[in-house]
Amino acid sequence: MSIEAGSDLIIFGAMGDLSARKLFPALYHLHHCDLLPEGTRILGVARPEQGLDDFLLHLKARVQPAIGADRWSEDTWMSFSARCDYLVLDFAERRYYQALADWVSKDRTAIYYLATPPGLFDQICTHLDSSQCLFPSSRIVLEKPIGHDLASCKQVNEIVAQYFTEENTYRIDHYLGKETVQNLLVLRFANRFINTQWDQGCIDHVQITVAETVGIEGRWSYYDRYGQLRDMVQNHLMQLLCLVAMEPPNAMTAEAIREEKVKILRALRRIDDSNVAQSVVRGQYSAGWHQGNAVPGYLQEEGCELKESDTETFVAIKAHIDNWRWAGVPFYLRTGKRMPEKLTEIVITYKSLPHNIFSGSEDTQNRLVIRLQPNEGIEMQMVSKQNTLKSKMALVRQTLNLDFLGSSDLDRIPDAYERLFIDVIQGDQSLFVGREEIEESWVWCDVITQACGRQNVKIKPYHAGSWGPAKAELIIEKDGRAWNV
Amino acid sequence: MSIEAGSDLIIFGAMGDLSARKLFPALYHLHHCDLLPEGTRILGVARPEQGLDDFLLHLKARVQPAIGADRWSEDTWMSFSARCDYLVLDFAERRYYQALADWVSKDRTAIYYLATPPGLFDQICTHLDSSQCLFPSSRIVLEKPIGHDLASCKQVNEIVAQYFTEENTYRIDHYLGKETVQNLLVLRFANRFINTQWDQGCIDHVQITVAETVGIEGRWSYYDRYGQLRDMVQNHLMQLLCLVAMEPPNAMTAEAIREEKVKILRALRRIDDSNVAQSVVRGQYSAGWHQGNAVPGYLQEEGCELKESDTETFVAIKAHIDNWRWAGVPFYLRTGKRMPEKLTEIVITYKSLPHNIFSGSEDTQNRLVIRLQPNEGIEMQMVSKQNTLKSKMALVRQTLNLDFLGSSDLDRIPDAYERLFIDVIQGDQSLFVGREEIEESWVWCDVITQACGRQNVKIKPYHAGSWGPAKAELIIEKDGRAWNV
Repeated sequence: MSIEAGSDLIIFGAMGDLSARKLFPALYHLHHCDLLPEGTRILGVARPEQGLDDFLLHLKARVQPAIGADRWSEDTWMSFSARCDYLVLDFAERRYYQALADWVSKDRTAIYYLATPPGLFDQICTHLDSSQCLFPSSRIVLEKPIGHDLASCKQVNEIVAQYFTEENTYRIDHYLGKETVQNLLVLRFANRFINTQWDQGCIDHVQITVAETVGIEGRWSYYDRYGQLRDMVQNHLMQLLCLVAMEPPNAMTAEAIREEKVKILRALRRIDDSNVAQSVVRGQYSAGWHQGNAVPGYLQEEGCELKESDTETFVAIKAHIDNWRWAGVPFYLRTGKRMPEKLTEIVITYKSLPHNIFSGSEDTQNRLVIRLQPNEGIEMQMVSKQNTLKSKMALVRQTLNLDFLGSSDLDRIPDAYERLFIDVIQGDQSLFVGREEIEESWVWCDVITQACGRQNVKIKPYHAGSWGPAKAELIIEKDGRAWNV
Repeated sequence: MSIEAGSDLIIFGAMGDLSARKLFPALYHLHHCDLLPEGTRILGVARPEQGLDDFLLHLKARVQPAIGADRWSEDTWMSFSARCDYLVLDFAERRYYQALADWVSKDRTAIYYLATPPGLFDQICTHLDSSQCLFPSSRIVLEKPIGHDLASCKQVNEIVAQYFTEENTYRIDHYLGKETVQNLLVLRFANRFINTQWDQGCIDHVQITVAETVGIEGRWSYYDRYGQLRDMVQNHLMQLLCLVAMEPPNAMTAEAIREEKVKILRALRRIDDSNVAQSVVRGQYSAGWHQGNAVPGYLQEEGCELKESDTETFVAIKAHIDNWRWAGVPFYLRTGKRMPEKLTEIVITYKSLPHNIFSGSEDTQNRLVIRLQPNEGIEMQMVSKQNTLKSKMALVRQTLNLDFLGSSDLDRIPDAYERLFIDVIQGDQSLFVGREEIEESWVWCDVITQACGRQNVKIKPYHAGSWGPAKAELIIEKDGRAWNV
């Protein structure tokens, strides 16, 4: 893949939170590392009436803290700024788009990055088209959420598909850009040692935990319509599950990988009226404590105008994949807000030894922990002989780290958005989410939502700062297993 | 197993090299760590006419440097000395044994440790018996060599068996006492992860290298009758091969382990007239260099009185185990004197990936390296994603160490003899060599020796300080593989 020299990144919502926290810091880093192709231009597009200088001033004030003092360079910022431009644009008003049409060029690749609420996708696409901003090479980058159920997701996809082919459509799930997630693929498919025992014959169960310490962060009215299942499971957890579970793709191409992910999503056992009560735990946080500070309950959060809500801020699911590789291997998923720690990890637990010849030692199962947060990395938990003369064969757990930084040409682990920007410029979709995947994922989640409603799977309260309702422990402990954390 | 309080260690050859370098330093360490049961007595038995004080003086002069200044404690030596006694004894003369009979007691366990040439075993056993030094609980510990071929080995075993039951006979192969070798068993049998792919489906080949930098060390006339096959392969390399290859024993008992080891030895494909030329390389060192110093050739070594010799100081063997687990997996064995470095390692190389989806990266096979010398330990060689943004999926080798010292209640890795002394006192034979094993091992080696003679497999010269004759590289390279070092 050659890096294309003539790309224009056009960022809708350039004054927004995502732009300031993630997109521009990632672009700054890429620029600093000389990884943005020379001719790449960056256009900030937003409503505020201001000039480029004011835009850059505003941006710098927010990007600089995100970069951190030790990595910030005034010189880099200056040369980075020279790539940037700004355009005042009311997304809903067609007349603003003429200036954009003047700015873009059909000889360059226009990459429209919509860091905007999804409700605007339709209008933006329509106006881009009618104002002649679109060329056959133009690409679109979409942030979540793409729909809140299958029907609305399809609607968004249909709209986008009117203007962009699937191969020019980049749906971001930033989890896929994380180094550790990519390393999971290498671990699985470049190590025979790992590859040959990635199945029901060897693996006991899989856990995926995405725990956040934050609450709703001022998004109450948005969040209350979604809840944790739609906001986190449908995208991030499902994507992680797919990467863990998929058959080896025949190539590292987007098509091959997507095909395998879709097969997993279709093989996920439906959680319907018959099994939802045993398979799903829903929770909602009440007031509690986080690191010594009192924190409000969900219904006391800023922006809440209701007396009660059936929206879950925590969900645990016991899932099954009905295929040859995973028959009988449960996948325990868990995600929640206001948890005791910020933790994202996938834990692969191998089966117990069929027979234990080391008497007196408990049977310790091998585990592979793929941790996205904190301390991004992969570790293997093994057993070795303790170096001792006091007993004959005393066993001891060993944790082996696959340390990233040791193999690095960077002095840091890059943020997911850096990888994703490079890929979208290079036209590599392998770490983006395909239409079929996202729709299949909604199918599965919708069935759960409907079953929860019909079977009246109530939300259970849990204290902010706890690991969710007690039932979330039970869902795994009744199988004789336990959450890793 | 309870530690027996009333054991007497009676060391024949207490003034010899092994006693000074290994046996007494090991006993000193055990005493220091409080691992010798309280009532344990130690009797040095040797020819020199001297009193206990002189014996201890002599011993201290040799043991102290072996322990090293930082671990030596005068107090420990004093209290250790209090356990020791000395007896003048000409092994060949029955009349000397009366004093030994007076010293031992039938209420205590007498452990006769024969650190003597094997030619004396017969006389010693006979005199011990006729002088009433033996009780049903008495044990015997034998050092190698036990025979120089099957017939002579059987002879020694027959003699010993007249006086000691097999369960009171402890044949030492000190490699088995090494921490790393015991850890190999834990690695194989306590990690499902490792255990389930320890076979021809997953493993490409196994290498076992025992390289010494020393030459003959003044043992020329002894060594010239043996050669490297009998001196090293028949015992150490065969034992390591057995531990790598054996089926999981049903228990960690000596019987269960020996049974599995014998099965491997019987399954070793005979190397006879039909295949010896392709399977065996013999070498003999000529003058060369070691670490900048000129070193003599084998025929120039001190004690050599011959103009030529057909004795090999290096041997490489390609072996096969004809059973279900190892069909088609070659075991490459290699051992020699005057090699460039002192190295003992077992290398398990896993098969290549059936399909490589990471284009541009070479296929890197997973390896497990079990290193006995230097830097005792186990490492896994894996592949992970390089932390880089410059290319999409750059792979990098990772070496994971199973570090012993991290799990230690000692500040050192104990010497093999420490473990073996504890075991012989406790009556645990699992790390000692059974009669059937040693005889089966001779069967296999004798067939090789005879075939080499009949098919005229000549010794090839190699320079001291090299890795043996060029043919030793060819024996593995013609299969498209290479020695790890």
